[in-house]
Amino acid sequence: MADAKPEIAFIGLGAMGFGMATNLVKRGYNVTGFDVWQPTLEKFQAAGGSIATTPAEAVKDKDFCVCMVATAAQAQAVLITGEDPAVSALPSGAALLLCSTVPCAYVQRLEAELAELGRGDIRLIDAPVSGGAQRAAEGTLSIMAGGLDASIDKGRFLLQEMADPTKLYIVQGGIGAGSNMKMCHQVLAANQILAASEGMGFATHLNLDPHFASQEVIGSADAWAWMFEHRLPRMLDPEFQPVASALTIILKDTGIITSEARRAAFPTPMTSTAEQVYFSALARGYGADDDSSLIRLYIEGQQGKTDPPGVLRRGSAQRNDVRSVALVKALLKGIYLCSAAEALAFASRCGLDLDQVFELCVNAAGGSSVLKTVGPDIIKLCRGETLPPATGDETESFGTCVRQLQEAVEEAQRLKVPVYLGSQALSLMQLALRSPAVASSDTSKAVVVRVWGL
Amino acid sequence: MADAKPEIAFIGLGAMGFGMATNLVKRGYNVTGFDVWQPTLEKFQAAGGSIATTPAEAVKDKDFCVCMVATAAQAQAVLITGEDPAVSALPSGAALLLCSTVPCAYVQRLEAELAELGRGDIRLIDAPVSGGAQRAAEGTLSIMAGGLDASIDKGRFLLQEMADPTKLYIVQGGIGAGSNMKMCHQVLAANQILAASEGMGFATHLNLDPHFASQEVIGSADAWAWMFEHRLPRMLDPEFQPVASALTIILKDTGIITSEARRAAFPTPMTSTAEQVYFSALARGYGADDDSSLIRLYIEGQQGKTDPPGVLRRGSAQRNDVRSVALVKALLKGIYLCSAAEALAFASRCGLDLDQVFELCVNAAGGSSVLKTVGPDIIKLCRGETLPPATGDETESFGTCVRQLQEAVEEAQRLKVPVYLGSQALSLMQLALRSPAVASSDTSKAVVVRVWGL
Repeated sequence: MADAKPEIAFIGLGAMGFGMATNLVKRGYNVTGFDVWQPTLEKFQAAGGSIATTPAEAVKDKDFCVCMVATAAQAQAVLITGEDPAVSALPSGAALLLCSTVPCAYVQRLEAELAELGRGDIRLIDAPVSGGAQRAAEGTLSIMAGGLDASIDKGRFLLQEMADPTKLYIVQGGIGAGSNMKMCHQVLAANQILAASEGMGFATHLNLDPHFASQEVIGSADAWAWMFEHRLPRMLDPEFQPVASALTIILKDTGIITSEARRAAFPTPMTSTAEQVYFSALARGYGADDDSSLIRLYIEGQQGKTDPPGVLRRGSAQRNDVRSVALVKALLKGIYLCSAAEALAFASRCGLDLDQVFELCVNAAGGSSVLKTVGPDIIKLCRGETLPPATGDETESFGTCVRQLQEAVEEAQRLKVPVYLGSQALSLMQLALRSPAVASSDTSKAVVVRVWGL
Repeated sequence: MADAKPEIAFIGLGAMGFGMATNLVKRGYNVTGFDVWQPTLEKFQAAGGSIATTPAEAVKDKDFCVCMVATAAQAQAVLITGEDPAVSALPSGAALLLCSTVPCAYVQRLEAELAELGRGDIRLIDAPVSGGAQRAAEGTLSIMAGGLDASIDKGRFLLQEMADPTKLYIVQGGIGAGSNMKMCHQVLAANQILAASEGMGFATHLNLDPHFASQEVIGSADAWAWMFEHRLPRMLDPEFQPVASALTIILKDTGIITSEARRAAFPTPMTSTAEQVYFSALARGYGADDDSSLIRLYIEGQQGKTDPPGVLRRGSAQRNDVRSVALVKALLKGIYLCSAAEALAFASRCGLDLDQVFELCVNAAGGSSVLKTVGPDIIKLCRGETLPPATGDETESFGTCVRQLQEAVEEAQRLKVPVYLGSQALSLMQLALRSPAVASSDTSKAVVVRVWGL
């Protein structure tokens, strides 16, 4: 018999947690799961896991605990303040991996609270993840982990079991840095999830065939984004099924971004706009629905009131018009450019290693062609470096990008379709062009980041 | 018998035109009206007017013609391209007052077209109005009139009959300048109409008594705005009645602003945000409703789905809480500040006389306490002048204003209520604080205009 693998406690078996925990089971770990929802416990048991009825019971005698609940409030309850919480039952020196997406401020407070409770022995790792339920189940997540070196050393094998080998980022800066990095990544997610609906909503008003339009976008060298490709199948489903990521999930992350940004007096005009649209969707009762269904906000009024929601499946739109696709792409590219600038500018404000942020984002759910090509120049400007002169092999200049987005916004206006993010991106680009820090000779699209004072 | 007053042709008897035309009837003019809608013609006849069945018939032998249709497209049709149009039937040397709100570009094209048609003899006056249906009927509108001196001289008595004596603005710059001035005024209107709904929507989520909250705002020295006071009675009506100004009217004006701004490559982030919300409201089917009913966008989800729309009338909200009122006021003041900066910055870009713009706006439907107190300093910055050092009798600094708006946006986030304009205003203020043109010692709220590169 080989050396037994360590036993793992796993708290929070939701869409992400269930996949992560069963992945560990498949890899031969004895995992004891806890969740407040009984059916998921039964499902976990059927998948080979052990189960517990309280957090304390789950972590008893376990040297490793992963916490993957949905919010900071839930984490606080299962770890410390709820009934039979985990922390008081954790063995001395146990590793505690907090994988939930929480504000930097929360996980730093948790670290302090452990010390106050006399549990400074617990090796806390701030380790939020990205990649969605499927990669969670495969053990190929992106993970950004921060903490004391000794804690990282102890938990590294477990992080490695859950992450893709090329996507495990050990973040310098101690507890909170991982959460900040996730937060900056989520700037891209928050904008690009909504952008998928805005872009496809615009496409339907242009009377484009949705399959044609979306394949043109996904297959393009310059307007691709992970979120667009990933959301599309559910957006094209008549019932927006299956629910892979509910609106409330991205709304929670969006709230972390804007509230942490306010705390830092840092403007996040793109994410703040997305957040308002999310609030409107929530008020419409869309909270529990897959976030790809936000396209409903962009297509209402277009169809008869009695039409079923899955309008994209229907044969009403027929055009395979390349010029209209170009408008959709221009809209998306403008949004991607401004969300890339906002994400990297905020990361710079948070003191993160921008190269690492870039590498994480470009290979995770926040990735886009625009980020990949323009990100390195944005990073240079964030660092106060100057850009090299234009080489001429750039496919398009900032001016071209502004002009194309302007055409898209103009067409949306003509069609009377809202383009919240596209309009905001255009305003930011125009403001950048009026900034005293931008010269008329600047041709790199990266200069949009000047509007953030960088 | 006294000298007969000249006969007047009046084309377009809508909400505004009907009041303007009947005011002229009351003042002793023989007015011949034309409208495409038969019932309004009958009503006009009952009010003492004469009627015509075509534009050409209306203007026949009339030395004065007022055109008050809703859009540039309608103006073009009744004047030139439609059936029996007015221009070919106007007597030589007649004065043509175009009072519709149209883009500067349209009225300039009309001037050129008259010349091309050999009707350069027509004394065209570009004379958009502001003030609402009641002031139209009283003959106390604000009017901003531009054109050749000889045209203005000929039409002045008629402008004076329709305008308040203190609110007739003769705008320098020829044909188009009046429309530009109206357009810049409408920046305030477009934002402040929506702000009324956003502010009162926020107030209901704060569980404030709507009558208490609105009276506190209206009676305040610092958060008053004409639009808020004017929209409130209809917003408090269970059916949002009577329809005094439909959503489609302000949406049309908003479109003029954003499309002319794009033509000038000038950013209008506040108005562009308002426009997206208006498009969403239009898609919801609210186009023909009074614009005060936009509050529905902010209160949905709060009440049961079967509740009638006039929720503000109901007794569910009870609190008379001064701190919550302060949050509502902070939200409104932030929006008013940024819309004032956007309106004056755009007016500066259009080459208008900023003192005249200010005097017009502060006394018209765009007026607000914030514009009145901060406008003069914004104008100084637009002109490249420096501000005098802080006197200490300013009630609050820019920093205080940002902090208070931030608290309001934070509370709205906690309540999950969208505040599209408040959030945008906060972003713009934060961007201004990061502009290299703003020093940390700057205390005037006017410095927000720096974000426009001024």
